[in-house]
Formats: sequence, C-alpha cells, structure tokens
Amino acid sequence: MTMDERKTAAEAWFRNLRDRIFAAFEALEDEGRDLPALPNAPAEPGRFATRTWTRTDPTGAPGGGGTMGLMKGRVFEKVGVNISTVHGTFPPDFAATIPGAAEDPRFFATGISLVAHMANPNVPAVHMNTRFLVTTKCWFGGGADLNPALPRQEDTRDFHAALKAACDAHHPEHWDRFSRWCESYFFIPHRNRQRGVGGIFYDYLECPDDAAFEANFAFTRAVGEAFLGIFPTIVRRRMAEPWDDAARLTLLRYRGLYAEFNLVYDRGTVFGLKTGGNADAILMSLPPEARWD
Amino acid sequence: MTMDERKTAAEAWFRNLRDRIFAAFEALEDEGRDLPALPNAPAEPGRFATRTWTRTDPTGAPGGGGTMGLMKGRVFEKVGVNISTVHGTFPPDFAATIPGAAEDPRFFATGISLVAHMANPNVPAVHMNTRFLVTTKCWFGGGADLNPALPRQEDTRDFHAALKAACDAHHPEHWDRFSRWCESYFFIPHRNRQRGVGGIFYDYLECPDDAAFEANFAFTRAVGEAFLGIFPTIVRRRMAEPWDDAARLTLLRYRGLYAEFNLVYDRGTVFGLKTGGNADAILMSLPPEARWD
Repeated sequence: MTMDERKTAAEAWFRNLRDRIFAAFEALEDEGRDLPALPNAPAEPGRFATRTWTRTDPTGAPGGGGTMGLMKGRVFEKVGVNISTVHGTFPPDFAATIPGAAEDPRFFATGISLVAHMANPNVPAVHMNTRFLVTTKCWFGGGADLNPALPRQEDTRDFHAALKAACDAHHPEHWDRFSRWCESYFFIPHRNRQRGVGGIFYDYLECPDDAAFEANFAFTRAVGEAFLGIFPTIVRRRMAEPWDDAARLTLLRYRGLYAEFNLVYDRGTVFGLKTGGNADAILMSLPPEARWD
Repeated sequence: MTMDERKTAAEAWFRNLRDRIFAAFEALEDEGRDLPALPNAPAEPGRFATRTWTRTDPTGAPGGGGTMGLMKGRVFEKVGVNISTVHGTFPPDFAATIPGAAEDPRFFATGISLVAHMANPNVPAVHMNTRFLVTTKCWFGGGADLNPALPRQEDTRDFHAALKAACDAHHPEHWDRFSRWCESYFFIPHRNRQRGVGGIFYDYLECPDDAAFEANFAFTRAVGEAFLGIFPTIVRRRMAEPWDDAARLTLLRYRGLYAEFNLVYDRGTVFGLKTGGNADAILMSLPPEARWD
C-alpha cells in the first residue's frame, strides 16, 4: 500500500464516520422532539450545518482544509463534529517535538474531532477524536472520553466496556495502557481532579509497514464504531430524565472546568490557537454556556 | 529605607486600597438597590465576603498567603478583589526568567488584583492589578484595563484620561509606553483582536535606590487612585441604562473571549495554575457566566 493510498483510506474513513455520526445524532434529535428543552432551544429538532475552510501553510502554499459540522438542537445543546485533512511544513521548533519531523518538517494529517454538550444535565458530554499523521514516520492517535456533570455508574461502565471491547479485539495491552493514558491526560492539577470519567487516549501507534498500518487503522475504526455504538445508547437512556435548576447549575459549573482544561492544558487546543490554526474549528469544543461562580 | 520597610509600606498600601475599593463598590451596590437585576441576583445589595488562605513554599516552609474578597451583587454580578503577600524560593527554571532571581531564587511579592464582571451589559467589566516584587532586584508592576462588551467612546475616553493623568504626573513617557504595552499584552492572536479597549500595563519599574522606590511606589499608588476615581464614575453613568436579551447575549459572548484570554495567554493565570498557586484566587477572574455559541 502506498502512502497516498493510506492517506486516502484514512481520510475516507473519517468522512464516513462523520456522516454516520451526523445521522445518528440527528436521529436522536428526532426522537427527542417532544421532550422539554431549554428556553432558547430551537422549536424543531436540530440539524447539522456544515462550513468548509481552507488552510494556507506558513510557507504560503495551499495547506488543505476541513469541514466544521455544528448542530444546536434540543437534545444536543451544541455539538461540533469536524473533519480536516491538512498538509504543509512544521515550524522548526515544533518539528523538533514531533516524531519523524526533525529530519524533514513536511507533514500530513487527517482526522475527526467531536465534542457534544448536551442540554439535559443527566446526559453526559462526550469528546472523541481520531487522526492519522504522516511525517517521515506515520501513526494513528485519538481517543474518546465521557464527561458527565452528574456521573452515573451505569453510563461510565458501559462506555468503558465498549471501548475496552474495541481495545481487547486488537491488542491485549491497549485497554490498560490507553485507559490509564486517558486518566493522566485529563487530570487537572490545579483542581486536583479528572476532567470526566475516562475512556481511552492513545497516540503514536506507528505504522512502519502495511501490517502495522492495517492493524492500527482497524483499531482506530473500532474506536469510532465503539463510540457510535455506545454514546447514542447512553443519550437515549438519559435524555427524558427530568432535571431542575440545581442540576443545570451543576452542569454549567462542570462546563467551566471543561473549558479550563481545554484552554489551559489541551495540547491540540493550545497548540492550534498559538500557531494560527482555524480558531473557529478549534474552539467549537467550548461549551455553549458555562459558569464560574 | 530598608527593604523590610519597603515591603511593609507596599503591603499596607495594597490593603488600604482594597479596603477603599470594597467600600466604593458596596456603595454602588447600595445606590443600585432598586435597579432591575438578573433573575438569580440576591434580593439585597451585595457585600464582600473574604476568605484568607496560606501558602506553603515548595521547600515546605511557610510562604505567606492572602485574602480573597468576593462579592456577588445586583450591580456587580461577580467581583473579586484579592490581596496577597507571599515569599519563598522560585523553582530553578522559573528563576532563570525573573529579573534578579538567577543569582538567588528567593522572592517576595505583594499585590492587589481585581476583576469585576457587571450584571448590566452597558457597564464595562474591568481589571486592575498592581504589585511589588523583590528578588535581588525589586520593582513595581501592574495596570488597569477596561473591558466593555458594548464599548462607549465616552467611557473609554474617560478611563484612558484618568490613567493618562496618573502617568503624566510621574513620567512623560509612562502613558505612551504603558498604554501601548497594554494594547500588545491584551491582543488575542487567534481572534485577531484586543481583549477590551485598553488602559495601561507596566512591569519592571525597578527601584535600585530610595528615590526610585519612592517614585515608582507613588506612581503605583496613583494608578490605584486613578482606578478608584474613574471606575465608579463609569459604573454610575451606565448602571441604570436598560438592556435586553440581545445585549446580555453580547455580554456573555464577550466574556467567553475574556475567559479565553485569561486561560490561554495571561501570564499570571497560566503560571499560577501550572505551579500550584491558589486556584480559587487565580480563577476568581473568570466570568460568572459565559457563552460560546
């Protein structure tokens, strides 16, 4: 398989997954049509609106681009699902920190990134992101983690179980490594607590040959499938549960914590903002409403 | 004047200024007693509540502490006024970046820090912070900047004029240098815009001898007096102006930008959070409610 074939296959998968997530989330909006919604929610079930953007490399050359998908609905207060495929040349100081880029700063990256903030405080927020990177090396990375303001054991258990099954089908150590990596990545030192109740986080699943590419690509697809299998199930389980002002306040304060993590610690967010990434796409992860009080 | 006398004088000033700010802001709460307020505002005019905290130096030794002052009122949706006086030893890598600390990493710092988020979108938010630092060198730093969601020329003009007068009384170049420094400090690259409409930002006003200490201390006091003179005037001018949902939404979105700046770029916030500072005191600057939608 040539590198171009790998890139095309990965990009096509992320787009396919995006399309299916759009459909699954819009179906949840339809199912929630008659549920109580926020005062400022739309009258009709939400639908994704897309916006494409193009990137110019710092060298001045075309650098790819992406499509933002944003839905503000009744079940989903705000959900962003972005895909992007970009290429170009890393700045020298950044290249030094990326596997395989010190030798040659050219890169290619394709991926999907999703953050859902839900109207009902009983429904957990969620983050999912998977990507394929190419420098002189190439690798997959990503993860998915659940972010309930009001954690429920059953939801955490099922979310973990779905990701564990995806991991276990591909490597006996994946779950152990990647679930711990998730815990450590989403630890917020200044709050001395985790953001969320975990899931998996992985990176640098290198693909030196076709067998490794196939295995890691299959694992990355399995992560996407696991997400698509379990998250709508959890939404369906919780979206009709009643909530009160106190629960909404707990949600808004939890979202403050979520925004803090993303803006202070999240590598992708901080790097993207400081290096001229597409701010609208990067910041689509921020909550529609948050409180620090 | 011994260094201990300088430290004591600076600390006493910041405490005195804090007391007068408490009084001035509580008076505004009294004056606004009968104005329309937010649905979740208290029934009575707000009053500052204080909470003291102590700091343990990374060496394990006592490291000073501070007092947070927080008021959630009807005019002031959330205002934090903190004073602190801390001392200890900088970590080596940080010491290397601080004037006079490479030679000896011990430090002393005393200061006041204020952020006010106002209920009425017509009233600008404001930030003010001044401090006295001692390593093998010693210096004053600080500033004040206005953050209206709905900028008004008259308010910007008067706020700038008050700070310019304080600057001009102390050094012919202070206003020019420090107002530009403010513009550049509060520029948000990823939004390609400023946070706020400016004011002043200054640092490293070194005090190698008594004359320099007296001059820079007098300037720092003048900045505090200028703030105390002009900000309540602007609040009084605007606090009875009616507003609608659209203005409130503009305010909440502006606060999203404000939070972004503080969490991604503000040196004090990011450094404080990443080095075990008092997270509650540091994050008192975050808005009570914000939107990214």
